[in-house]
Amino acid sequence: MKVMIDICIVPLGVGVSVSEYVAACQRVLQDAKLDHQMHAYGTNVEGDWDEVMAAVKRCHEVVHELGAPRITTSMRLGTRNDREQSMDDKIQSVRNKLDS
Amino acid sequence: MKVMIDICIVPLGVGVSVSEYVAACQRVLQDAKLDHQMHAYGTNVEGDWDEVMAAVKRCHEVVHELGAPRITTSMRLGTRNDREQSMDDKIQSVRNKLDS
Amino acid sequence: MKVMIDICIVPLGVGVSVSEYVAACQRVLQDAKLDHQMHAYGTNVEGDWDEVMAAVKRCHEVVHELGAPRITTSMRLGTRNDREQSMDDKIQSVRNKLDS
Amino acid sequence: MKVMIDICIVPLGVGVSVSEYVAACQRVLQDAKLDHQMHAYGTNVEGDWDEVMAAVKRCHEVVHELGAPRITTSMRLGTRNDREQSMDDKIQSVRNKLDS
Repeated sequence: MKVMIDICIVPLGVGVSVSEYVAACQRVLQDAKLDHQMHAYGTNVEGDWDEVMAAVKRCHEVVHELGAPRITTSMRLGTRNDREQSMDDKIQSVRNKLDS
Repeated sequence: MKVMIDICIVPLGVGVSVSEYVAACQRVLQDAKLDHQMHAYGTNVEGDWDEVMAAVKRCHEVVHELGAPRITTSMRLGTRNDREQSMDDKIQSVRNKLDS
Repeated sequence: MKVMIDICIVPLGVGVSVSEYVAACQRVLQDAKLDHQMHAYGTNVEGDWDEVMAAVKRCHEVVHELGAPRITTSMRLGTRNDREQSMDDKIQSVRNKLDS
Repeated sequence: MKVMIDICIVPLGVGVSVSEYVAACQRVLQDAKLDHQMHAYGTNVEGDWDEVMAAVKRCHEVVHELGAPRITTSMRLGTRNDREQSMDDKIQSVRNKLDS
């Protein structure tokens, strides 16, 4: 089963600047060789369910290892079995409606 | 690693009534013997990370098997390594502040 | 337009314990006389869209006033124009499926 | 008070294809002259709290008008009073950590 997620990992107890922790998670996604795209309030990731979820778990572990005693993450997860649709497909589908 | 999640699974392409699908997910959580508590806009679940995430995956599989071609889930995930805190502890902690 | 929300307000830069801030938001909802129900990972609120959103804004203001320099909130918002459905109705609808 | 949100509006009861509804919301944001950036699983919007929330309400109204009887939206909302930070600033802040 393929999944597309949007994830925003928030470390607590480490002050207001969280970019160091977000960067560490970007490295986890890169190391996992998962397609991903950061935006201003989260990151899109797509791939096999088990691989994506293993990376999400690894992100929590890495952020704890970096010193965050508590983490609260918000995530969207999308699956479909009617057809394949990539991250680019989703954006293009909306753009086509906007142009028409 | 223990995790507490709040999950809201939304099947698309099956009309406006989603209670049948939510009920199927409640059964998945019961079968997995995970502590869980349904509320009006989601369900809290707590337990071992891998067991909780296996149940989340099983929910997506079951909802697809019931006929939903597409699913979009929103989820919060909380982990902490400073101390243990159950779902009841979290609520009691706020109630203590309200009473004081 | 009526709305039902599920909201989880997370103050950053104030340490790991957030119950004081959650309690302050509970008081905001009480003062606004909005139907609400706290759970272990958020709070359900229902009412008129403008009144509910005014309370959400007031929560952010109050949490900043209490000393949090940064807040990240996750929220679900549900509206429907096919019929009225209360928080209790939603839960009962799932329970009926579980019993059948 | 400035706010940055990430919003994903999901119409129910209209089948699996939701791009028409997402496109309508993009037009609402354009008409409101709010800075916004669509990604594969939502849209970032930043601006004055009241203006952003008015656009969110308008999106729900427009999606209902287009025929969706039910909508479930997931949203993140970020506010801070320690300093100004744009959507581009947030992304750049993480990129600087990745490069260092």
